[in-house]
Amino acid sequence: MTAATDGTPTSGGPVERAVLEDLAAASRILADQGVFDSAGHCSMRHPGHPQRFLMSRSLAPALVQAADIMEFDLDCRACDPQGRNGFLERYLHGEIYRARADVMAIAHSHSAAVIPFGLVNTPMRAMYHNAAFLAAGVPVFDIRDKFGVTDIVVSTPEKGAALAAVLADKPVALLRAHGVVVVGPTLRSAVFRAVFTEVSARIQLQATVLGGPIAALDADEGRLADAVNLATDGRAWELWKMRVS
Amino acid sequence: MTAATDGTPTSGGPVERAVLEDLAAASRILADQGVFDSAGHCSMRHPGHPQRFLMSRSLAPALVQAADIMEFDLDCRACDPQGRNGFLERYLHGEIYRARADVMAIAHSHSAAVIPFGLVNTPMRAMYHNAAFLAAGVPVFDIRDKFGVTDIVVSTPEKGAALAAVLADKPVALLRAHGVVVVGPTLRSAVFRAVFTEVSARIQLQATVLGGPIAALDADEGRLADAVNLATDGRAWELWKMRVS
Amino acid sequence: MTAATDGTPTSGGPVERAVLEDLAAASRILADQGVFDSAGHCSMRHPGHPQRFLMSRSLAPALVQAADIMEFDLDCRACDPQGRNGFLERYLHGEIYRARADVMAIAHSHSAAVIPFGLVNTPMRAMYHNAAFLAAGVPVFDIRDKFGVTDIVVSTPEKGAALAAVLADKPVALLRAHGVVVVGPTLRSAVFRAVFTEVSARIQLQATVLGGPIAALDADEGRLADAVNLATDGRAWELWKMRVS
Amino acid sequence: MTAATDGTPTSGGPVERAVLEDLAAASRILADQGVFDSAGHCSMRHPGHPQRFLMSRSLAPALVQAADIMEFDLDCRACDPQGRNGFLERYLHGEIYRARADVMAIAHSHSAAVIPFGLVNTPMRAMYHNAAFLAAGVPVFDIRDKFGVTDIVVSTPEKGAALAAVLADKPVALLRAHGVVVVGPTLRSAVFRAVFTEVSARIQLQATVLGGPIAALDADEGRLADAVNLATDGRAWELWKMRVS
Repeated sequence: MTAATDGTPTSGGPVERAVLEDLAAASRILADQGVFDSAGHCSMRHPGHPQRFLMSRSLAPALVQAADIMEFDLDCRACDPQGRNGFLERYLHGEIYRARADVMAIAHSHSAAVIPFGLVNTPMRAMYHNAAFLAAGVPVFDIRDKFGVTDIVVSTPEKGAALAAVLADKPVALLRAHGVVVVGPTLRSAVFRAVFTEVSARIQLQATVLGGPIAALDADEGRLADAVNLATDGRAWELWKMRVS
Repeated sequence: MTAATDGTPTSGGPVERAVLEDLAAASRILADQGVFDSAGHCSMRHPGHPQRFLMSRSLAPALVQAADIMEFDLDCRACDPQGRNGFLERYLHGEIYRARADVMAIAHSHSAAVIPFGLVNTPMRAMYHNAAFLAAGVPVFDIRDKFGVTDIVVSTPEKGAALAAVLADKPVALLRAHGVVVVGPTLRSAVFRAVFTEVSARIQLQATVLGGPIAALDADEGRLADAVNLATDGRAWELWKMRVS
Repeated sequence: MTAATDGTPTSGGPVERAVLEDLAAASRILADQGVFDSAGHCSMRHPGHPQRFLMSRSLAPALVQAADIMEFDLDCRACDPQGRNGFLERYLHGEIYRARADVMAIAHSHSAAVIPFGLVNTPMRAMYHNAAFLAAGVPVFDIRDKFGVTDIVVSTPEKGAALAAVLADKPVALLRAHGVVVVGPTLRSAVFRAVFTEVSARIQLQATVLGGPIAALDADEGRLADAVNLATDGRAWELWKMRVS
Repeated sequence: MTAATDGTPTSGGPVERAVLEDLAAASRILADQGVFDSAGHCSMRHPGHPQRFLMSRSLAPALVQAADIMEFDLDCRACDPQGRNGFLERYLHGEIYRARADVMAIAHSHSAAVIPFGLVNTPMRAMYHNAAFLAAGVPVFDIRDKFGVTDIVVSTPEKGAALAAVLADKPVALLRAHGVVVVGPTLRSAVFRAVFTEVSARIQLQATVLGGPIAALDADEGRLADAVNLATDGRAWELWKMRVS
């Protein structure tokens, strides 16, 4: 069921145009909001088939349109490549979808204010309600731990699985000397979380400069505040989408 | 006099179109000036009825237009909802208007450079004349003090009243792990203060990095300089309004 | 010769339209470059009469056009007000022109990265060749020293003269809890210096964070590098002017 | 072969229009990406003649078009000036091309976040894969070491050669109190490196604020990751070029 006889996986079925446009918009939104630089990618699980996911071909995220969206199985083989190339790092998406049935969307960025937290021993914390999901804890994936000296790229199923193992049940994991991966139960929530991970990192840096203990959200507050975010993230989505339409 | 027999409050009377447009512009200005993110809201007391206030429906502040302005009584019940939903946090507005007869306008934001000061023990001070109003002192409202673990949202009259009590007679209060509330004797002054609270926070952070005592405005200088700001804030208002028109 | 019998000063004579347009552009440039906020003003000495200077009416600097330029004598009386109001702080311009025959243009701003250096004991230094003029030393004017508690505004000839005395023969002076004044031998050089005072302040802050001694330009290097800047500032001027035309 | 009898060097031959347009675009890209301020310049080796290089006339880099590109020999004499003036600092280009046969393109900027690292003893390191080339080490050129008090400008062959000697075989060198020079095996790679040198500097500053050891890329990781960047920099180039077209 997962592949044709030639090894090309079968499609999970047609996807509504509006869904593809939202996924493409998510990519442009994250570029517009300063989370994606000239790289970065977001994906979503296929709405009709949990063993497939949708993700742009390799392209600067500010330029992604619906026609650039490809479909992959969880081994990251394209169902219908049409001559398009996927990102080298699609394996981090495939392996997280495999490991986390609750995850419906993933964003991977080189979000600039977040990277320092993957380089030092200071854990990221939830500086305010918009970043409530960080209160669950933010693990750091150091590719050296399992793979030694590498080119840093999460370019194989094994590396993707190792990252997924570090992410565990959390919404965010940092990648040492590389970037961050953010997941959510919906596309909108993944976008919302990617934006506010970046903003919270800037705030934590500034709070650190001021000195003394930081009265961040604790885990219980984070859980409650995150539920509010998930219920109201449409307000941000509509604004952000309008800016890139 | 405050409510019809069905519990819907009566209106404080018609409001000039130009007033509604200024209130909507204030919302867009604070988004344009980087004080509001995809959320944030400002309100003004009804010009003809001190027990009513005007505030946008729940909407990204960059998008607010005059038609989005709703009228509420101080219990935060809409006079004429027309199917529109108010912000969850309108209670912080209602309770401040109830507690402070001198307050004619309120802005609540997640102003990014301000949030660190609500998380640590360093008090905000007035770094320059534009932020003179901060020299009166800037209290911090920690919702945990009275309500324990919450979702952080000021979503009830009781929480609004607790915030108003911490604000006391000051122009600005910080909300731990959340944001800031700024009040003024006019809409323009509230907008001016919200902008320069953010700028002064950035300056204080930088002065802290440089180290040593900070020769901020003292309370007497602050009082005198604030009077100049209140007399000349039309210059900033006209510029800022033009940018969002 | 300096005033008509009614006390209105006589004009220094007609000024070429291109000169007025450059002065207006200077104002818009400094807003566009992030040096001026909703306030800030620049002026130039009258090309044909050293006892007169030209300066915008009180207006947000991003909006200044040639028709907004007024002429003042060094006592800051308007030659031909035409119902326009000058800035409250024009006295800092008048008194510097009186004290410094070499100064042909002045900019006064609330340049955000510069203000911290007026609040602490760390002197500004010249971080790179573009800011070479800072190597001459940057004094700080604290209005309290001579005037005690004030509203911070340099609103009288006496306050302007006290600032001019602190500036002495330097190109830049900081105003505690207020801003900065920058002077130059030409309009272009004053604009160039105002921009790079701001940029150098940001760099110095960052160098301070990194720690250790800072290998800034010394006074001799500064003198030599400043001569290059004065000879080549047309390149920046043309670009900046194009952006605001 | 290198000069006509009048001392004007002969041209290395005609260059395709698309190459000149790419070089001009590189200049505008670096301005658009915040690496170039009102000055800064990039050059490339002549595709058909290794003893010639191509570089804009003296002009704000945001304004450079193909028609502004001049050709120079390695002594920095223009082959066909047509009344155009070269940058004073073209000598740093000429001498690096002379010393480094592998270098095909050079960018020199006053990249603001990089300058602090030329002023203090903290070495720049590679904060993430995009800046992998920094893992080779980043030397600092202090013009005082060889030339004493100067105007800082690299305005002679001797000064250019001294800089090239400090650069040695590295991709990046800092210039104390001045800026940075970045080289690459292609125009695109030099642009890519100039952008991510700036971004990595900002990240290193922030990691320093957080404190503790920084788990930067080591030399081996840097080498591997740089190879990936060189293979994929077209994605960034296409985006950046589109923004300035």
